Amino acid sequence: MQLGIIGLGRMGGNIARRLMRAGHQAVVFDRNQDSVHGLAGEGAVGAADLADLVSKMDTPRAVWVMLPAGAPTEATIAQLSELLEPDDVIIDGGNTFYKDDIRRARDLAARQLHYVDVGTSGGVWGLDRGYCMMIGGEREIFERLDPLFDCLAPGMGDIPRTRDRNSADDRAERGYIHAGPAGSGHFVKMIHNGIEYGMMQAFAEGFDILKTKSSSELPEDQRFDLNLADIAEVWRRGSVVSSWLLDLTADALASDQQLTQYSGVVSDSGEGRWTIDAAVEQAVPVPVLSSALFARFRSRQDATYGDKILSAMRFGFGGHVEVPK
Amino acid sequence: MQLGIIGLGRMGGNIARRLMRAGHQAVVFDRNQDSVHGLAGEGAVGAADLADLVSKMDTPRAVWVMLPAGAPTEATIAQLSELLEPDDVIIDGGNTFYKDDIRRARDLAARQLHYVDVGTSGGVWGLDRGYCMMIGGEREIFERLDPLFDCLAPGMGDIPRTRDRNSADDRAERGYIHAGPAGSGHFVKMIHNGIEYGMMQAFAEGFDILKTKSSSELPEDQRFDLNLADIAEVWRRGSVVSSWLLDLTADALASDQQLTQYSGVVSDSGEGRWTIDAAVEQAVPVPVLSSALFARFRSRQDATYGDKILSAMRFGFGGHVEVPK
Amino acid sequence: MQLGIIGLGRMGGNIARRLMRAGHQAVVFDRNQDSVHGLAGEGAVGAADLADLVSKMDTPRAVWVMLPAGAPTEATIAQLSELLEPDDVIIDGGNTFYKDDIRRARDLAARQLHYVDVGTSGGVWGLDRGYCMMIGGEREIFERLDPLFDCLAPGMGDIPRTRDRNSADDRAERGYIHAGPAGSGHFVKMIHNGIEYGMMQAFAEGFDILKTKSSSELPEDQRFDLNLADIAEVWRRGSVVSSWLLDLTADALASDQQLTQYSGVVSDSGEGRWTIDAAVEQAVPVPVLSSALFARFRSRQDATYGDKILSAMRFGFGGHVEVPK
Amino acid sequence: MQLGIIGLGRMGGNIARRLMRAGHQAVVFDRNQDSVHGLAGEGAVGAADLADLVSKMDTPRAVWVMLPAGAPTEATIAQLSELLEPDDVIIDGGNTFYKDDIRRARDLAARQLHYVDVGTSGGVWGLDRGYCMMIGGEREIFERLDPLFDCLAPGMGDIPRTRDRNSADDRAERGYIHAGPAGSGHFVKMIHNGIEYGMMQAFAEGFDILKTKSSSELPEDQRFDLNLADIAEVWRRGSVVSSWLLDLTADALASDQQLTQYSGVVSDSGEGRWTIDAAVEQAVPVPVLSSALFARFRSRQDATYGDKILSAMRFGFGGHVEVPK
Repeated sequence: MQLGIIGLGRMGGNIARRLMRAGHQAVVFDRNQDSVHGLAGEGAVGAADLADLVSKMDTPRAVWVMLPAGAPTEATIAQLSELLEPDDVIIDGGNTFYKDDIRRARDLAARQLHYVDVGTSGGVWGLDRGYCMMIGGEREIFERLDPLFDCLAPGMGDIPRTRDRNSADDRAERGYIHAGPAGSGHFVKMIHNGIEYGMMQAFAEGFDILKTKSSSELPEDQRFDLNLADIAEVWRRGSVVSSWLLDLTADALASDQQLTQYSGVVSDSGEGRWTIDAAVEQAVPVPVLSSALFARFRSRQDATYGDKILSAMRFGFGGHVEVPK
Repeated sequence: MQLGIIGLGRMGGNIARRLMRAGHQAVVFDRNQDSVHGLAGEGAVGAADLADLVSKMDTPRAVWVMLPAGAPTEATIAQLSELLEPDDVIIDGGNTFYKDDIRRARDLAARQLHYVDVGTSGGVWGLDRGYCMMIGGEREIFERLDPLFDCLAPGMGDIPRTRDRNSADDRAERGYIHAGPAGSGHFVKMIHNGIEYGMMQAFAEGFDILKTKSSSELPEDQRFDLNLADIAEVWRRGSVVSSWLLDLTADALASDQQLTQYSGVVSDSGEGRWTIDAAVEQAVPVPVLSSALFARFRSRQDATYGDKILSAMRFGFGGHVEVPK
Repeated sequence: MQLGIIGLGRMGGNIARRLMRAGHQAVVFDRNQDSVHGLAGEGAVGAADLADLVSKMDTPRAVWVMLPAGAPTEATIAQLSELLEPDDVIIDGGNTFYKDDIRRARDLAARQLHYVDVGTSGGVWGLDRGYCMMIGGEREIFERLDPLFDCLAPGMGDIPRTRDRNSADDRAERGYIHAGPAGSGHFVKMIHNGIEYGMMQAFAEGFDILKTKSSSELPEDQRFDLNLADIAEVWRRGSVVSSWLLDLTADALASDQQLTQYSGVVSDSGEGRWTIDAAVEQAVPVPVLSSALFARFRSRQDATYGDKILSAMRFGFGGHVEVPK
Repeated sequence: MQLGIIGLGRMGGNIARRLMRAGHQAVVFDRNQDSVHGLAGEGAVGAADLADLVSKMDTPRAVWVMLPAGAPTEATIAQLSELLEPDDVIIDGGNTFYKDDIRRARDLAARQLHYVDVGTSGGVWGLDRGYCMMIGGEREIFERLDPLFDCLAPGMGDIPRTRDRNSADDRAERGYIHAGPAGSGHFVKMIHNGIEYGMMQAFAEGFDILKTKSSSELPEDQRFDLNLADIAEVWRRGSVVSSWLLDLTADALASDQQLTQYSGVVSDSGEGRWTIDAAVEQAVPVPVLSSALFARFRSRQDATYGDKILSAMRFGFGGHVEVPK
């Protein structure tokens, strides 16, 4: 099958490669023509611009946009919508806000174009492990593109099947689902990331206590000299917290328990924030997911204005003077 | 009436002064004899050591220990218990953990000594405003000491009476209560401080949003150039958040909206922590009180080990590299 | 001065009354003509519909819309904008989302109409105490309407002035401010409510611990039989947590410590939610404000699906069976 | 090797079985003699009481106490300490508070007895999967007992080795570690459970949002009809949140997406609470771990007193009347 791919960063490039390895054809474009030539050298059809890409594809076309969410994706989809023909499909594989998907699908439908949103997890490792995909859009279009998704997905692998599972459709077990109409793919991916933040913060806090308990600032009789690398490792086998995130933590701690290469300034992306907005909109209490997000916000500041307000109040009612860090 | 006072810091000294102004007698001791001589110059009976203080008092004695909680208070009470006679009273006016009060009351009862724990709020301002007091111990002893508490308390002042209040005992309205048996005074004071932390953090977060909304880093069309001093001031009249803490915030902001004299390193004391322990012990969900405490913990660190764990995981699954602050 | 008022519920009606008491003129309309006739009987000029109201006013007009936020306010402003003439002013005194204010001000400016957003706190008590007002819009228009705001505001009252305050403009001290351009009034009011939620929850959690500590389910030697009405009362005098919210709590507890008339199902309004959205948008950590909102969400549910997920996992890894409430 | 085992519930019985399968000898006792006879039928040496168990063992003995933490374990260890001889070892495999371990080890050392604390995870599944063990006590004693731990642990299994791991000691990779001196085993296990709570709550909140987004109470154009079983399943392959807890969630949802057999009343055990106490003691901010605990507390109540306080305040300042659930 043929897929147009726009944006040949790590994700887009590897999607092309994984498809080509399985015998599919990739028609590719990137503003950086070196990336295009590189992939052409691996067997892809290179395009000089969007119009060229469209012209080199058979109808009905399917074009996967793999660009940063927001303006770059928006502009590219707008341009594509001028170039494509009825029944063609635009796929947004980026981290788009799901309400933008809903709007786009409605707008494109007016031009008889289809829109599919694909949330992916595990991207960096996807070339070899495959991409876990949550897909939104019309069911017929999902089915039309199924060979591509099937190829990109991880497959069953050696992960044991879920007991009691009796769905006629085994695609979830092979690592991709049709979540529902446009927007639902990115909605599910968004929640995935919200959960991810929460799980990460749970580990962060636990290891923080372990580290602090080992601190030389504690009196000796209150201290345990804990080996955090061994602790992460032992939990990987048979414990309730075993998980990929734990594996990654064990990796990092095996190299350096002090994590000296990290300063602890932690970014967040749209999904973590939108998850909180969605919860607030739906009146769902999410203390863990929000705390995880706020910890990241806090990690990026030296001192908050709020903390200064606290100090000012304490001085006001008790004459308390700050003790320096 | 006569009261022995041990510890003549700001709190202890002013308690002596407020009592003497009302015609009571203070017998005072402090390791720093200058403090003793100073108060003696204001009319107190000075003592050279604990034994001297005890010998200068009429029986049954009442001795107020106003020292840092923990070892200093513990040691002084132990010494006093050797010197006092049956039916004498030891008062702990410090910030003692309420379970220590319960233990002490039991131990002292074996020697026929009484124990009273007094939690006070508004200490710095107490000389003029009076001390809001929550008192634990035997009711008879509370009644015996009532003239002292009555004098130290703020009194009704110009604060409007609570509608529907019909208690025969108006002492709560005058600013002091018998909370219950030993320990209950400090327990109630502990919860008071827990609430105080939560209220302070609510203001801190709100002003932080207001400040950030005024930040020159925001695009101009998303920014409001807010006057935080005026906002604090306007809320003082008629708004739902009017409170003493708001008054103090308005004070601080009137002097300097940037709060440049504060670095935002915020201490916490035992009460805030014990409140969380009590909630955990009693299975009461306290997300606000705990968040307020954790914000203070966080304010004292540059980067947490937990944050580094997050960075390490993000590098592991996504190749994300930290963006410096 | 003359003010048109649309919406004669408790807020709108009392605004009219407070203005008329001071000699201003109110031209009033409500879908419920009984309300109109009632206020007409108190001296207002009644109107049969919006056009009638507009026709009965002198130019430049100022019309205060005091309706539920959202559709009712939106529709009324749309209608008014057709009826009013250049230089007239529309005031939205409701709980509108500040981004809606910004949009409306821009749209109305295109018709040479002015828009002012007024956030008010303390509404129910406003007739007698006055309204604490945070006002957004053009400064000239704010100044034009100043006599109205001055009349509606609480004034200095007997609240002590803030030390170090030296602003030339004493309106903040009299209970109203010009916060900035359109939207800023409701923005500041929104944050006010966010803080209010946090303070309320701080008290809620503290009293919950006190109540639980008094529970007959506790072993007798761990229990204190605390009088919560007295505790609220004593804190009103001289303590750090003294506040209007504490006064209200003391009121409620004086009537009934069990609070039996309340089931504990707690609503939330837009402001509490938008505060969290704003914090997330601005990357400000707000654990207390969000926890307070989530506690309200949670109070309205019997059991969450999330809790069932926990139970299902616990059964899965440990065979744990739920113990009924 | 020989091991005495006291307490033949699911954990104790299976520990005996797993050891016997590997050729070790189990000398077993339980108050329920049926359990003793049952295991004797499987090859164990049964004992009629503690003295009998001790008399049937070779010296130096190792006796594993596998009883509920608290009084039952405490009493049994006290009795055993009277019966055992110098150089014998008592192992506590239960969920003991680590400070109790420290005290016991000190007390037993005075009698020349050794004490080892073993925290285990994955207990229910341990007979077949093995037990993940975190072990505290003297290193020489840990080494003495190594054959037993080696047998009980899961072993490397088919879990990929951690990159960069270069410890000479591969026991962490085989699922057990010597964490440090007495108490450290249970300390590490305690933190494990704290993390577990946080991870579970992250999933709970995420699925709650997904569920709510599918609710028929939402307007149709805001709703997605999501298949939660498929979502859990698809995340099992290649996503960042893949974990054993997700596997268990997928299991449960495959059987019944409504989780109708669960009411959502969620218990908590000592470890989750002690984790918070430890964090508070060590001044580590743990918003996620505490939120997870509080969600469980909240799940067990219909309405909190705190919620009623909120309702009472809202009535007080705004006349708001509760809307029933």
